[in-house]
Amino acid sequence: MTRQAQAADSAEGEWASLRARYRLVRAQSERLCQPLLVEDYGVQSMADVSPPKWHLAHVSWFFEAFLLRPYLAGYRVLDERYDHLFNSYYQTHGTPFPRAQRGLLSRPSVAEVYRYRAHVDQAMDRLLAQSPAEQAAEIARRVELGLQHEQQHQELLLMDIKHILAQNPLLPAYRSDLRAAVVRSAEPLRWHRYPGGIGHIGHGDAGFAFDCERPRHRVFVEDFQLASRPVSNAEYAAFIADGGYRRSDWWLADGWDLLQRAGWQAPLYWRQADGAWQEMTLGGLRELDPQAPVCHLSYYEAEAFAAWAEARLPSEAEWELAAQSEPMTGNFLEQDWLQPMAAAAQKSGPAQLFGDVWEWTGSAFRPYPGFRALEGSLGEYNGKFMCGQMVLRGGCCATPQAHIRGSYRNFFYPAMRWQFSGLRLARGA
Amino acid sequence: MTRQAQAADSAEGEWASLRARYRLVRAQSERLCQPLLVEDYGVQSMADVSPPKWHLAHVSWFFEAFLLRPYLAGYRVLDERYDHLFNSYYQTHGTPFPRAQRGLLSRPSVAEVYRYRAHVDQAMDRLLAQSPAEQAAEIARRVELGLQHEQQHQELLLMDIKHILAQNPLLPAYRSDLRAAVVRSAEPLRWHRYPGGIGHIGHGDAGFAFDCERPRHRVFVEDFQLASRPVSNAEYAAFIADGGYRRSDWWLADGWDLLQRAGWQAPLYWRQADGAWQEMTLGGLRELDPQAPVCHLSYYEAEAFAAWAEARLPSEAEWELAAQSEPMTGNFLEQDWLQPMAAAAQKSGPAQLFGDVWEWTGSAFRPYPGFRALEGSLGEYNGKFMCGQMVLRGGCCATPQAHIRGSYRNFFYPAMRWQFSGLRLARGA
Amino acid sequence: MTRQAQAADSAEGEWASLRARYRLVRAQSERLCQPLLVEDYGVQSMADVSPPKWHLAHVSWFFEAFLLRPYLAGYRVLDERYDHLFNSYYQTHGTPFPRAQRGLLSRPSVAEVYRYRAHVDQAMDRLLAQSPAEQAAEIARRVELGLQHEQQHQELLLMDIKHILAQNPLLPAYRSDLRAAVVRSAEPLRWHRYPGGIGHIGHGDAGFAFDCERPRHRVFVEDFQLASRPVSNAEYAAFIADGGYRRSDWWLADGWDLLQRAGWQAPLYWRQADGAWQEMTLGGLRELDPQAPVCHLSYYEAEAFAAWAEARLPSEAEWELAAQSEPMTGNFLEQDWLQPMAAAAQKSGPAQLFGDVWEWTGSAFRPYPGFRALEGSLGEYNGKFMCGQMVLRGGCCATPQAHIRGSYRNFFYPAMRWQFSGLRLARGA
Amino acid sequence: MTRQAQAADSAEGEWASLRARYRLVRAQSERLCQPLLVEDYGVQSMADVSPPKWHLAHVSWFFEAFLLRPYLAGYRVLDERYDHLFNSYYQTHGTPFPRAQRGLLSRPSVAEVYRYRAHVDQAMDRLLAQSPAEQAAEIARRVELGLQHEQQHQELLLMDIKHILAQNPLLPAYRSDLRAAVVRSAEPLRWHRYPGGIGHIGHGDAGFAFDCERPRHRVFVEDFQLASRPVSNAEYAAFIADGGYRRSDWWLADGWDLLQRAGWQAPLYWRQADGAWQEMTLGGLRELDPQAPVCHLSYYEAEAFAAWAEARLPSEAEWELAAQSEPMTGNFLEQDWLQPMAAAAQKSGPAQLFGDVWEWTGSAFRPYPGFRALEGSLGEYNGKFMCGQMVLRGGCCATPQAHIRGSYRNFFYPAMRWQFSGLRLARGA
Repeated sequence: MTRQAQAADSAEGEWASLRARYRLVRAQSERLCQPLLVEDYGVQSMADVSPPKWHLAHVSWFFEAFLLRPYLAGYRVLDERYDHLFNSYYQTHGTPFPRAQRGLLSRPSVAEVYRYRAHVDQAMDRLLAQSPAEQAAEIARRVELGLQHEQQHQELLLMDIKHILAQNPLLPAYRSDLRAAVVRSAEPLRWHRYPGGIGHIGHGDAGFAFDCERPRHRVFVEDFQLASRPVSNAEYAAFIADGGYRRSDWWLADGWDLLQRAGWQAPLYWRQADGAWQEMTLGGLRELDPQAPVCHLSYYEAEAFAAWAEARLPSEAEWELAAQSEPMTGNFLEQDWLQPMAAAAQKSGPAQLFGDVWEWTGSAFRPYPGFRALEGSLGEYNGKFMCGQMVLRGGCCATPQAHIRGSYRNFFYPAMRWQFSGLRLARGA
Repeated sequence: MTRQAQAADSAEGEWASLRARYRLVRAQSERLCQPLLVEDYGVQSMADVSPPKWHLAHVSWFFEAFLLRPYLAGYRVLDERYDHLFNSYYQTHGTPFPRAQRGLLSRPSVAEVYRYRAHVDQAMDRLLAQSPAEQAAEIARRVELGLQHEQQHQELLLMDIKHILAQNPLLPAYRSDLRAAVVRSAEPLRWHRYPGGIGHIGHGDAGFAFDCERPRHRVFVEDFQLASRPVSNAEYAAFIADGGYRRSDWWLADGWDLLQRAGWQAPLYWRQADGAWQEMTLGGLRELDPQAPVCHLSYYEAEAFAAWAEARLPSEAEWELAAQSEPMTGNFLEQDWLQPMAAAAQKSGPAQLFGDVWEWTGSAFRPYPGFRALEGSLGEYNGKFMCGQMVLRGGCCATPQAHIRGSYRNFFYPAMRWQFSGLRLARGA
Repeated sequence: MTRQAQAADSAEGEWASLRARYRLVRAQSERLCQPLLVEDYGVQSMADVSPPKWHLAHVSWFFEAFLLRPYLAGYRVLDERYDHLFNSYYQTHGTPFPRAQRGLLSRPSVAEVYRYRAHVDQAMDRLLAQSPAEQAAEIARRVELGLQHEQQHQELLLMDIKHILAQNPLLPAYRSDLRAAVVRSAEPLRWHRYPGGIGHIGHGDAGFAFDCERPRHRVFVEDFQLASRPVSNAEYAAFIADGGYRRSDWWLADGWDLLQRAGWQAPLYWRQADGAWQEMTLGGLRELDPQAPVCHLSYYEAEAFAAWAEARLPSEAEWELAAQSEPMTGNFLEQDWLQPMAAAAQKSGPAQLFGDVWEWTGSAFRPYPGFRALEGSLGEYNGKFMCGQMVLRGGCCATPQAHIRGSYRNFFYPAMRWQFSGLRLARGA
Repeated sequence: MTRQAQAADSAEGEWASLRARYRLVRAQSERLCQPLLVEDYGVQSMADVSPPKWHLAHVSWFFEAFLLRPYLAGYRVLDERYDHLFNSYYQTHGTPFPRAQRGLLSRPSVAEVYRYRAHVDQAMDRLLAQSPAEQAAEIARRVELGLQHEQQHQELLLMDIKHILAQNPLLPAYRSDLRAAVVRSAEPLRWHRYPGGIGHIGHGDAGFAFDCERPRHRVFVEDFQLASRPVSNAEYAAFIADGGYRRSDWWLADGWDLLQRAGWQAPLYWRQADGAWQEMTLGGLRELDPQAPVCHLSYYEAEAFAAWAEARLPSEAEWELAAQSEPMTGNFLEQDWLQPMAAAAQKSGPAQLFGDVWEWTGSAFRPYPGFRALEGSLGEYNGKFMCGQMVLRGGCCATPQAHIRGSYRNFFYPAMRWQFSGLRLARGA
């Protein structure tokens, strides 16, 4: 075979694999919504949450707006008005429907949203059926982005569904068939030491990564230590018992203000009943597992705990450098626990860097040196959020495994806690 | 037949008729929800609106709380938690679920709510199957109240459904089969004169009326005049064209503030397209009928229009005295237009006092002299709202005809305008 | 003397008396501000309160806007920008400076505001020095209105000063030389009976009255009874002790909501110290006088108390009819107690109808039949506030005696309680 | 002289110098308030602003709370309640008076606040008169901190006075004798190159620095370039003219939202009159100097401008490394321009790194590696604000020169713009 033919062959192979992944990812989103009632699809329990139906439509809109409209000749939209309804925040693409009002849209119905998905899927089939042509590279790049985007929304779907159901005094379970976590005995917290110096973090040129993970660049860190596992529920309960939510000593000023205004007394989904802690989960209300990583903390709570524990949060550089020698395995969406779990018997390196809970870092979400946003409206993907938010690392029990990377930068405002967020302690050497 | 037997017979007859009416009213609520998708049942488009599903459950809770629990021996609730979820505002009965969060309740599902209705209906069947006993009078009174309450919610259902659908840029129709209004030519506005003096208003002892309509009492009015029909869309459009929403001259101070803050430029459901006015209706977006009564006005708008027209709103005493000689017929829910319509050729007295649109009066909703609230929690029904609201009279195209009376006092805050509210002009003699 | 000469003479006499009253009223405003520090003049403790300095300037602006500008040839304003700064709410006159920002104006300084007053006074001297001419009648009418307006603001000054100082943890006294109230023993509450029928209320043609007090008109009332004195602090404390602020039973829905949101536990200026009630007064913090009329109640509190006491508030017609046979004497501004006091030994009629505390009535502030607002911008004086507010009657310890009338209608929103407001019970016969 | 005597001598010398500096700094605060009217001292124009009077009292409270109470035997407070009123945010010291209500405190009066200052000064005299004893080192450290703290508030005083006066439609000047800026011709913007590598930033052990400037530590930067001067008014006006406030393209999402909500159209104190830009200054309203550095920008505006200019903001490490070779001279408080000015003819290095305007950096305000807060309540000084704010560098025309350092880290929330904040562009090499 000539090199040219080989290249064509390999391109064709990649194309086929993209088509296959497209189908898998799209099916996964729908599978996640299987347990929902039609009624659950439309609720928006706070402005940050989107109705599940809206997620399903928006991720389809993403393919329509950035692939079908520009690249599929003769593409006909199902409903021109969806371009407004399902645009999340792309101001340069058009005026998005107001975020806080997504819960008011009883129409399009759930069935119509699925019809919209099918419509987009059929058109995407046509787009991907064509032999790779002139624009193939850009199309492939965007399909990849669209799939990663949909995987992000798969985690958002679970976060949002959990939040929606938790507002309801009936405390309905998302899935009553969800297995109970494996109970394990307490692992003592140990410290792993890392030498300082100049290292590299960020994602290199090859393979997919979001714009904010690039470019790979040099960083300098001093010697540091990282805890062998995330902070556990038992440890966090000790902080509460020691006045964690009653004394200002350990709190950032903004956090203390918020705690008082909002009446926080524990992590988001904890409830006290007869002196014992319970926790709302995707499987309904459960006894708190003392050895499982604490979850659904705001940044303020994470930093207050760290101050109480006389430690600190790792920087994202420290976290990433440490993670470079660890396998990207763990408790992810595919394991189908949908709840963080106590680590199994301790291994050589730090446990649970990946999966279970996102770990708040002490780093603000800012552009890496040399950062460049994508061209056009896609440039709004991450860059415009690089202010006021903190970085979290490692993925969680609701993150698709194929979606995570050591360089992955998740980010939330410090007040937010409906994501699966916990913390791991760090300290100087 | 002895007198005693006759009385028993007649009581039995009333009892049977109550049973029959119970079934009819309850069926009517469900019939009104027929055109809804499951998705429409759960939306709460503003704090004042309740999800249709919640209405269906709440009116059932009313029977459960005030009839089944106290009077049906051995009654077993379907779900104890519903007593919290579906309590609207009866503080002395328990802590109601927060009103503004009703839209967050995806569960109980629509099917479960219908199941709850059936459960209550079966129990009510048992309660009403028993021969009238010692507590029969009180039970009958409460059933009557429960039915009137449910009829109120039938109108609320239509108001709320209209509001919910109107928030949606897709502008879905509640019923696409709704007939277009009969178009009629303009009726000139004439004035009917009424002599002053002492008259009686309010509802007497016989028959059902809400507590706030009682007691029947003496009032004094000066000579007055009442317009022959409600203000029309064309007349209101002339007010707008004359700067009605741009000049403060005619407005109450609170109204002018609100207009500026909220950006009001026309009645709630009006939209301007290519210089012409359109209106969102339960049948979808339609051309404005110039001769139909203007609808969905706040009190502020009604009073500003009256000031512009160099007239005033009638007091509720004037309205009721005038209405005492008019037949209680008109465009009600049963006529199934669900939209106010131009009156047919003028008759002797004022047209459309009943039906079409609620007419704002210039009277604050206050207790009549000698008012007494009901006993117990039912005392919260009307009395505690007798501050800050204005009285409207006459019913509208969404009011069940059997629900209206000449003494009927509807009331809303002056800022509200999602009810079917218009106005009729009055002036001194 | 010819009749013409007599008329001229009498006009000249009235004119001279107007000039004299102008000086007295203007001086009184400044005298009330004597005890203030410069620092006190500028504070706005809530949006409803105006800085004392602003009051002093605004009442001068009133003469400037409605008398000097239209009627004094060659009048030159001191500063054109004051027309914006000191316009309260006359939209048809110009755009008022935003009310809630009055406390931000450190300039004009206190000295400049006094200069502005002197400037206006000198010009008014010139206007009133001229012999009564063609426009004399209208000028006299407006001067009278301006003086009544300034007297209203004298009471507002005391209300606002009290509120301003009460926000300060140092609890400074407005006047440390204020006499302590005369302590009196408890007067038992008695009931005075009044026959119903058609009566006349409102102010006739002769003499000054605000537009809202007119026209005099017929009203019908049923037989009623009125309490012999206002509700006392001791009686109100018994209501509190009986759970008045903890049980919803007696409250209007809006009142109960507000109580919970705002955390109300007692009247505005009450404080509990070592089990005893104290009260912030214009003379500083004092022990509560149990026999003095309760003061600084919202309408909601007044109505809740009345419900608890199994009575009701009088209507404004009842109050005015009863007051027609009572002398207009009492504890007013001029007595210089500046605090309501227990009534002296009971006399034949009801005590303290005038003075001490404004008495909430159960009547909404609405136009009387035949009401006509003044012409031009002055038409905004009262008419545009005739919605959502309740009428209070009788004046209080901070009202100038010459300012009160039996037909006087004061009005506040039901939530407000920084005015000197109490209540008197009424009931049916 | 023995070494011991020498040490004592030198300690005595430092002690004397501290006494001298104490007097100078304290006098400076009062000098800055000289031009104020009593009326100006009490206004709080937004929650972030404090009344000048409060600043004067609070900085005195600082000496009282952290020096006189713990270290001066027999110290008697002037008024125990001031400990509550003038505590800014030290939760572990007591409950601070609510920040947003500082403008409600007409008392203590201005004269009393000056009396409080004198009281504290006399006590500080006694404390500093004593020979340096056991606790001398800690006392000296705290006095130094107290003086630096007061210098911070001197800049805050000017920022707040400017904001207070700018709210007033009369646009009063803080000082009418303020010289007009020297007008200079435009300096072309040039780029200075800096080599990357590992450098040191932060303050070393010797001399005073705030806790947040420590410890001195290693950082790594890539090669970078820095603009020769801050962005000028003319350049910023070009950004506005190019649609800077009308197109979302260059804005962070939070910035764009805020711009729309708040209606921003230009920097804080700019006003357009007849097509030309004017600017409110401490000397009153003035024509905008096109060559002066743009000032009173939020972080959002700074970053939007940088994006429009296809550059970026420097990191704080880049800024500090570049500043290490520059003299700490410039347009500071002592120069008494109180307004940023165009740089004089360009010199070798970048101009105006110090003085004129604070320069927004792209760095979030976070603890340096190894950061340790101070002990006790003083630990609340900086550490608890290390979230959500961005670092600014270099001081401004309102900063006391003796207060600035190359390592100085100022910080504000990205939405704030009443500080004298501008920007300098940076870019990669």
